[in-house]
Amino acid sequence: MGSVIGKTLKISVFGESHGKGIGAVIDGFPAGIEVDDGYILREMQRRAPVYAASGTKRKESDVPRILSGVLDGKTTGAPVCVFIENSDVRSSDYSDFMNIPRPGHSDFTARIRYNGYNDIRGGGHFSGRLTAPVVFAGALSKLALKKAGIEAGAHILRVGYAADNAFSSFSPDISLINELRNKKIPVISDAAGVRMLETAERARREGDSVGGIVECAVLGVPAGLGSPMFDCVESRLAAMLFAIPAVRGVDFGRGFDGAAMRGSEANDGFYVKDGKVETRTNNHGGVLGGITSGMPVIFSVAFKPTPSISTPQNSVDITRMENTEIRVSGRHDPCVVFRAVPAVEACVAITMLDLLLEARGYEYFR
Amino acid sequence: MGSVIGKTLKISVFGESHGKGIGAVIDGFPAGIEVDDGYILREMQRRAPVYAASGTKRKESDVPRILSGVLDGKTTGAPVCVFIENSDVRSSDYSDFMNIPRPGHSDFTARIRYNGYNDIRGGGHFSGRLTAPVVFAGALSKLALKKAGIEAGAHILRVGYAADNAFSSFSPDISLINELRNKKIPVISDAAGVRMLETAERARREGDSVGGIVECAVLGVPAGLGSPMFDCVESRLAAMLFAIPAVRGVDFGRGFDGAAMRGSEANDGFYVKDGKVETRTNNHGGVLGGITSGMPVIFSVAFKPTPSISTPQNSVDITRMENTEIRVSGRHDPCVVFRAVPAVEACVAITMLDLLLEARGYEYFR
Amino acid sequence: MGSVIGKTLKISVFGESHGKGIGAVIDGFPAGIEVDDGYILREMQRRAPVYAASGTKRKESDVPRILSGVLDGKTTGAPVCVFIENSDVRSSDYSDFMNIPRPGHSDFTARIRYNGYNDIRGGGHFSGRLTAPVVFAGALSKLALKKAGIEAGAHILRVGYAADNAFSSFSPDISLINELRNKKIPVISDAAGVRMLETAERARREGDSVGGIVECAVLGVPAGLGSPMFDCVESRLAAMLFAIPAVRGVDFGRGFDGAAMRGSEANDGFYVKDGKVETRTNNHGGVLGGITSGMPVIFSVAFKPTPSISTPQNSVDITRMENTEIRVSGRHDPCVVFRAVPAVEACVAITMLDLLLEARGYEYFR
Amino acid sequence: MGSVIGKTLKISVFGESHGKGIGAVIDGFPAGIEVDDGYILREMQRRAPVYAASGTKRKESDVPRILSGVLDGKTTGAPVCVFIENSDVRSSDYSDFMNIPRPGHSDFTARIRYNGYNDIRGGGHFSGRLTAPVVFAGALSKLALKKAGIEAGAHILRVGYAADNAFSSFSPDISLINELRNKKIPVISDAAGVRMLETAERARREGDSVGGIVECAVLGVPAGLGSPMFDCVESRLAAMLFAIPAVRGVDFGRGFDGAAMRGSEANDGFYVKDGKVETRTNNHGGVLGGITSGMPVIFSVAFKPTPSISTPQNSVDITRMENTEIRVSGRHDPCVVFRAVPAVEACVAITMLDLLLEARGYEYFR
Repeated sequence: MGSVIGKTLKISVFGESHGKGIGAVIDGFPAGIEVDDGYILREMQRRAPVYAASGTKRKESDVPRILSGVLDGKTTGAPVCVFIENSDVRSSDYSDFMNIPRPGHSDFTARIRYNGYNDIRGGGHFSGRLTAPVVFAGALSKLALKKAGIEAGAHILRVGYAADNAFSSFSPDISLINELRNKKIPVISDAAGVRMLETAERARREGDSVGGIVECAVLGVPAGLGSPMFDCVESRLAAMLFAIPAVRGVDFGRGFDGAAMRGSEANDGFYVKDGKVETRTNNHGGVLGGITSGMPVIFSVAFKPTPSISTPQNSVDITRMENTEIRVSGRHDPCVVFRAVPAVEACVAITMLDLLLEARGYEYFR
Repeated sequence: MGSVIGKTLKISVFGESHGKGIGAVIDGFPAGIEVDDGYILREMQRRAPVYAASGTKRKESDVPRILSGVLDGKTTGAPVCVFIENSDVRSSDYSDFMNIPRPGHSDFTARIRYNGYNDIRGGGHFSGRLTAPVVFAGALSKLALKKAGIEAGAHILRVGYAADNAFSSFSPDISLINELRNKKIPVISDAAGVRMLETAERARREGDSVGGIVECAVLGVPAGLGSPMFDCVESRLAAMLFAIPAVRGVDFGRGFDGAAMRGSEANDGFYVKDGKVETRTNNHGGVLGGITSGMPVIFSVAFKPTPSISTPQNSVDITRMENTEIRVSGRHDPCVVFRAVPAVEACVAITMLDLLLEARGYEYFR
Repeated sequence: MGSVIGKTLKISVFGESHGKGIGAVIDGFPAGIEVDDGYILREMQRRAPVYAASGTKRKESDVPRILSGVLDGKTTGAPVCVFIENSDVRSSDYSDFMNIPRPGHSDFTARIRYNGYNDIRGGGHFSGRLTAPVVFAGALSKLALKKAGIEAGAHILRVGYAADNAFSSFSPDISLINELRNKKIPVISDAAGVRMLETAERARREGDSVGGIVECAVLGVPAGLGSPMFDCVESRLAAMLFAIPAVRGVDFGRGFDGAAMRGSEANDGFYVKDGKVETRTNNHGGVLGGITSGMPVIFSVAFKPTPSISTPQNSVDITRMENTEIRVSGRHDPCVVFRAVPAVEACVAITMLDLLLEARGYEYFR
Repeated sequence: MGSVIGKTLKISVFGESHGKGIGAVIDGFPAGIEVDDGYILREMQRRAPVYAASGTKRKESDVPRILSGVLDGKTTGAPVCVFIENSDVRSSDYSDFMNIPRPGHSDFTARIRYNGYNDIRGGGHFSGRLTAPVVFAGALSKLALKKAGIEAGAHILRVGYAADNAFSSFSPDISLINELRNKKIPVISDAAGVRMLETAERARREGDSVGGIVECAVLGVPAGLGSPMFDCVESRLAAMLFAIPAVRGVDFGRGFDGAAMRGSEANDGFYVKDGKVETRTNNHGGVLGGITSGMPVIFSVAFKPTPSISTPQNSVDITRMENTEIRVSGRHDPCVVFRAVPAVEACVAITMLDLLLEARGYEYFR
């Protein structure tokens, strides 16, 4: 219960932060897709800390080892299993949190859910590190989606009060997506990126952390993917995205801002462009009635501040049922969004491939 | 593909706005739950328009007829099918939208998805009317959840710029939930409710519409429901909520606002209260690591402005592939959130019952 | 839990034998399929008792009422709900079985499963009558499958010791399937049919019942449907078939008889026929490695004797926990296989359509 | 699509016979179950060839390496990933079968399904070797089931015409199950075992193979597990069992033989035994109406003869579309049932644990 998702394309994620390793099984992946190792590795490296000073301190090599489903550089159609060994593991750091749970972490709830048998070291199965196999699955999905002309790209929309320009206010194109992909800090306005870094650095210096927002666009999505109600694009995608640790919100198009809008402003009028029906604005984020419109799919994902902070916090010694204080030592990443960008893209790539397979079947990839 | 959701408790929704009727099959519902007709009817009546002038014009009796799964006033454990006949149907209003799709509606995407065979009258299967059977399933689920001491209640947090106090800034209690339940406009601050109505009325007078936000709390949730990753409470709940038409965003606890928060501010410290571990603040919205903490589950749902407005809008005549204008006649509800409150509660009730059944099994209800 | 099945095509069955009625919701059905009412009704009438004397005594009109998903005689792509009202209901017959369960029936196990809240009248949700909506869904699926050139047909292979010729020993063609479809007793050898009837009649006269086997073939199945392991054609189909009450066994190709065969005899050699790869024999029943081979899919379904017999049987008075005897009055169908033929065909039609949608997607039906 | 199954307990199987290895991810497994390595290894060794001369020639060490989900010898509640490295791999044997498919094998259908990209070496993902991770998952499930007093055991019922006594004709007890578990050839009558071996040896000597039947019993199953219709015990179990390569049939209780029985003979009368309701005979195989009765669950699984035989067979050269002959060299296991016994037990253990979790939830294992 928990770590399997998907309908025609199923992902089963396993592993713990400080165990033997982490990985995923990808079932239902189309056969004959060329596995571009370089591409996949670059995707995974985008998870690396962006900057020396405030990034996560743990050096993660994250070399994915494909255990099945690939032969002669191409997918076989059988389940693809990827395994990423854990190398730089220091578990002593985490030994106390079973009894004195860290605020904002899963320590307390996991203990109850698993009756204290859960692996708490480094967050165990709840660790952000578990996004690495998801990013692998996303990279593989992106390689399949390229065949259908679909490309996904994300940028950091906000860190604290430092904000980038929003995709949802215009229609991003492929050159922007490619540009973002190659930036150290994926933002449209580099000045905003500088302010974001400063915001995170300042939080870290003050023994604190800060939240942020990632915004993502998918280009080349054909109209007609998705379904009404529970298999709407939003439901399918949100179910993937909330699996990323620290995600607290997901919205589409103008999303929460739309609550303050008028219909005359929010509705995107249709017009004919090059023999196709399009909309000039894209407040709907490419999804109407749960189904793609052919316009870029655009959504945002809100992340809470990293719960690990060095400032002392209130907690409880559960064995004694006494109030106490906890101080989370170590140098922690003060803001997860810098590393979360490829995870967000991975989620949408996996979901889009699943939806595409529903629309066109596995024979489409012949 | 589309209208079935759930793991141990499965809901299958059917029907069209202007067809014979709408309904749902609820599979896996526990046996022996007393079906309180009065309670269910009151829940369904909460979907009725709240005010004479700007509410939806269609008179909906919405009498649910239970076709199966109930005997002698108690659930039998077999699937419960509910059917709500459509009575006040005037389909002539909608005949043109297949060729000239309304901006912001599903007309265009449904046409492509179903190759023009979809029932477009009144939005067909995409209509907000489809939330009626969901509210029925929610009411039934609430009756089961009462046995476990779980209660859900929602209020309108925002209409345009008119805002109520937020659950997420404190821990709501059962008396507040009950109070909201009996208010014509479910808001904590009645003054806010008046401003919300005014905001909606003004929009309507100006041939326009306006968006809003509903916030919901679930009390009495035991710690330990849910799972990490894809079966986290947020994923499960979001997948239900985005099925409500016009929903564009879902967030938990401080959600999107948390993006601008510091960790020291967002983290909820633990303390011992009456021999139980609790948190003084509830920024985490009752969910940590995807699992309930025992604190109230709190989340918000953003709705876009009703797409149906009388102001002329740009559209395309698809058969001729020519630009044109469309004017949506009739008197439309200028803001869906007033009627959306019970639908939001229903979604969380269904999801919580599903999660409870996973934790305790069907034998729990013996 | 129980009455929903399918991946891209989902069927949710509801209702009780002696309640308001029975029905199903069919989700994910392709849009634009012409709903041939005459065809569907004929399919449903094939469930009617085949012969005056020993058939089930209850007169079932079984007129399916389509509540959703069909407009102007074509499917819309939205869920199709069908409802069949129960008309000829006499529930007094069944009142005692809650406390003194009938051997071979679900009375005892359902009582435990549902803590005595289950509707036991006429078997409730466990009744063979629940195959009527399945047959409806099957008829609809057959109409969709025709577009892909796929046809399913079954015959009675055995009643007691009276046996028909077996499909699995040769490759049936469409003319045979059509012929069987129009026979009152669907058998290849009419002489066998006469013996079958006599076998059933004799059982009935002696206050007893008898079991049987139905064999089914699907023609025109393209090679390449299905998957290895848990989504193999056999797994998917068996999961549907065992849902038919009284089914106790399912096998494919030579099935259980293959246990006594040699490989040299069982293996079907390949050869080229009209530019296609075929096999001369079809011991594999059209499925190799869980995937269709392009040869007819052939399988058999074993039914136990009808448990309702007028002979006195041992049972227990559960409230008193005392041994007792039970005599099931009324005139019961002494053999279910005569009526089970269309249910078997329906199961395979639904499964094949689901598998076809996985292979080709919903866009295939455009 | 294919290698994931389960509802609350999900198994995702991966790997190829001659690739890097094989494995499984077990999601939803209860926390706190002691992982008895010795027990698990013994279960896996039961897959080893039973006898020197006619067993499979490949030496399989099959040491399962647990990559996640276990800490300090106990399950953590997180997904358990097991990986079994392939050591003794000689792939040259299999190079031709892509173009000249072996009769009775998946070569032809897999080629079409995966457009020729499938890994055909040793059967790839279709190999019987894939039952090893299933047996691992089964062993783990058995350790959990012991906590609820549930034990599964199987024997060989038939090889060719050599037949053992049948469980279905009486009610097996735990001492018999334990005895079978420790026999080299798991049969009730050792004389039958000798004849079975002879049957297989003779087939092998003649360049041929032979089929067989495995029969399995589950003791200690509480009444009330399972559901009507598609989640009936039979449907759930059959869907697992048909995933075992070479399985062609599954039946419950008297199964196919019941087709020739009378109701008066097949119905198992109830009586009171030690304050519990039981049946004296167990023709129903422990399942009535899809729900367990509290009597042992009994079922049989039919296996076709191993398709690999050294006798020349007809096949087609697909690239040239010409008829040809194929001779499968190497020394092949002439009968799979000897090694299939633990796989059958594994399937029922996994299914029973899944059903138990539905009935009692994950909190049951606290």
